[in-house]
Amino acid sequence: MPSTEFDLIYRHFASLGAGPAVDLSVGDDCAILKLEPGERLVTSVDTMVEGVHFLPDMFPEIIGFRAVSTAASDLAAMGARPIGMTIALTLPQADDFWVHSFSEGVAETVSLYGLPLVGGDTTRGPLTISVNVLGALPAGEALLRDGAQVGDGVYVSGQLGDAAAGLAILQDEWRPEPDAAAYLVERYERPRARLELGQQLLGRATAAIDISDGLLADAGHIAAAGGVGITLTAGAIPLSAALGGAGDRALRWALTGGDDYELCFTLPAGESAPEGCTRIGEVVSGQGVQLDVDVDTDAGYQHF
Amino acid sequence: MPSTEFDLIYRHFASLGAGPAVDLSVGDDCAILKLEPGERLVTSVDTMVEGVHFLPDMFPEIIGFRAVSTAASDLAAMGARPIGMTIALTLPQADDFWVHSFSEGVAETVSLYGLPLVGGDTTRGPLTISVNVLGALPAGEALLRDGAQVGDGVYVSGQLGDAAAGLAILQDEWRPEPDAAAYLVERYERPRARLELGQQLLGRATAAIDISDGLLADAGHIAAAGGVGITLTAGAIPLSAALGGAGDRALRWALTGGDDYELCFTLPAGESAPEGCTRIGEVVSGQGVQLDVDVDTDAGYQHF
Repeated sequence: MPSTEFDLIYRHFASLGAGPAVDLSVGDDCAILKLEPGERLVTSVDTMVEGVHFLPDMFPEIIGFRAVSTAASDLAAMGARPIGMTIALTLPQADDFWVHSFSEGVAETVSLYGLPLVGGDTTRGPLTISVNVLGALPAGEALLRDGAQVGDGVYVSGQLGDAAAGLAILQDEWRPEPDAAAYLVERYERPRARLELGQQLLGRATAAIDISDGLLADAGHIAAAGGVGITLTAGAIPLSAALGGAGDRALRWALTGGDDYELCFTLPAGESAPEGCTRIGEVVSGQGVQLDVDVDTDAGYQHF
Repeated sequence: MPSTEFDLIYRHFASLGAGPAVDLSVGDDCAILKLEPGERLVTSVDTMVEGVHFLPDMFPEIIGFRAVSTAASDLAAMGARPIGMTIALTLPQADDFWVHSFSEGVAETVSLYGLPLVGGDTTRGPLTISVNVLGALPAGEALLRDGAQVGDGVYVSGQLGDAAAGLAILQDEWRPEPDAAAYLVERYERPRARLELGQQLLGRATAAIDISDGLLADAGHIAAAGGVGITLTAGAIPLSAALGGAGDRALRWALTGGDDYELCFTLPAGESAPEGCTRIGEVVSGQGVQLDVDVDTDAGYQHF
């Protein structure tokens, strides 16, 4: 007997809806959340479609983890404190195993990010997941894309290219030694939204974005929004040891890999970078992103 | 040449993002909105899938209008003041005509409801639309499903069954005279979220829900949430004149038609109903929904 949308939602997700900002969670027509006095609401939506944003044979737990992490990454890029999310889940049939596994991946992110699931809609159709994240920011404060100033340093968190390498491994395009492969696949499958770093950068960074389309493309968004240019030093781009055997591909993945979800941001000269972040370039007058070496690459991943 | 998701979003939707609660709209990683002091955030998400929630040949403008209206209807059912929405749009190709027409339907709702479009994600895939609505409520006030008390009257807004009749006409299952057909099809294609009524009912109604699954099913949600029963008087259910020639089907559509998006609510004895609303029954001890006549019908529309 087919389950109803209500059964599906309640059974697997009902325990994920509690949080300090949640007055009323899943179960009524809407959820109710509270902000602290003087705070603003921050919101963004991200969609993942089977075969476009993830592999058809990806384990549902991974799909759930990635879908939330990539959406939460937009809160990180604004410097926002997470308060909740809704998930619109469209799937071909009411498959109890699938939904349970998916919900486990979501549950990991709820706990990891402190991002309760306060609402959802489950419908029948081709596998599609939209996550709408909700966060809070002190009024007048935000990490925007458009504030980079000539002379600022350009920084990234973590290491770049790992996720693209992990995808290449999953697609049998590259076979590094097993430990490296496991590390890189994990980086693709379980990207971490840099929520704590984003909040640390509030009031310090002049511009910020999360790297979802690739470093070149996303640094390009900062340059375009600020009416400035960016020069990058290829040798400064942080690469993990696991990419050691990848040769030229390592830099290409770091420049154009679209799934790292690290933050790229600009700091005024003299402002020190948070731990785990690396200076990779400088904001200059002009436009666009220039690299100090020639690399044969398209600029990032474009939908459509 | 394919457009990017950014081009698509900006070109067609950029003018729809302004509103009194909007500090920052489409264009950065997130939007920023403000609530008034003492208000709570209200949120809900609704998905529409081609072939499941709308006909494959439906005009894109109608799809846009319906998708937003059905989502906004959840704000109405909570008594919330609308402040903004995001739309996750998945479509098979970047069809400029389609997106333009869709955006015109969305634009009508933005204006009609005062519900600015503050964020979105456009991806390639099977046609799916998720609308996440955002609203505001005074702290401690909300129209919930679970407050119905024995002795309360049960009311509905407007007239029921029109949308189901309109769908039957579009599917060539019924051919009334042209004026009636035009009226009923319009009721299916352009349902109105009862946002003003919802706000009027704040502090007066003991329970409320919007009729998305059919009167019997949705009144059943009020009964179940409140631990009470509901008796309905078939002859009291308001029907439009356009259903005059439909015979027995008119009542069946009114009881189980899932697309009217009117409000069903309960008022304490002695509380007068707002204009345009009709008393159709009473809250009793017990459980479930009882009708005073026998009607051959399944109980509402269930996804899956």
